[in-house]
Amino acid sequence: MKAEVFVTLKSGVLDPQGKVIARSLRALGFEEVRDVHQGKYMVIDLEGVAPEEARKRLDEMCQKLLANTVIENYRVRVEGAEEGNS
Amino acid sequence: MKAEVFVTLKSGVLDPQGKVIARSLRALGFEEVRDVHQGKYMVIDLEGVAPEEARKRLDEMCQKLLANTVIENYRVRVEGAEEGNS
Repeated sequence: MKAEVFVTLKSGVLDPQGKVIARSLRALGFEEVRDVHQGKYMVIDLEGVAPEEARKRLDEMCQKLLANTVIENYRVRVEGAEEGNS
Repeated sequence: MKAEVFVTLKSGVLDPQGKVIARSLRALGFEEVRDVHQGKYMVIDLEGVAPEEARKRLDEMCQKLLANTVIENYRVRVEGAEEGNS
């Protein structure tokens, strides 16, 4: 079963990498770019768990390893289950 | 208008970071993890463009800056437009 995890910086946390990407895009002529937020994206392949159980386990994975919940938010999407936020 | 860009390594390209995450998760007791692919996630705020035009512009941004199309695939999602792949 495939799951996706999205990790983004909480609002208010400085995102210098996002700012550099935004500036670079505008310098390349994409003046419509107002802001960019850089995050992490993980595709996780799981076996032997049901979608709803997988959501709970992925939530634990984010808390323990995948996200730094002091400064980051995460979002989990599992094939066949409802989307969940932190 | 908000758009999301997902950049992942093409299949066949070595992903040592993903492998380390998978191994770490299993070591933490998440034995259901078979594989992890690490990618980039960007949330881009745009102004003054219609959704369909935004999709084309984002495609150009990926080609020119956001993705290395030799080794990476990208996917773009724009609020109010259909999803697009590279």
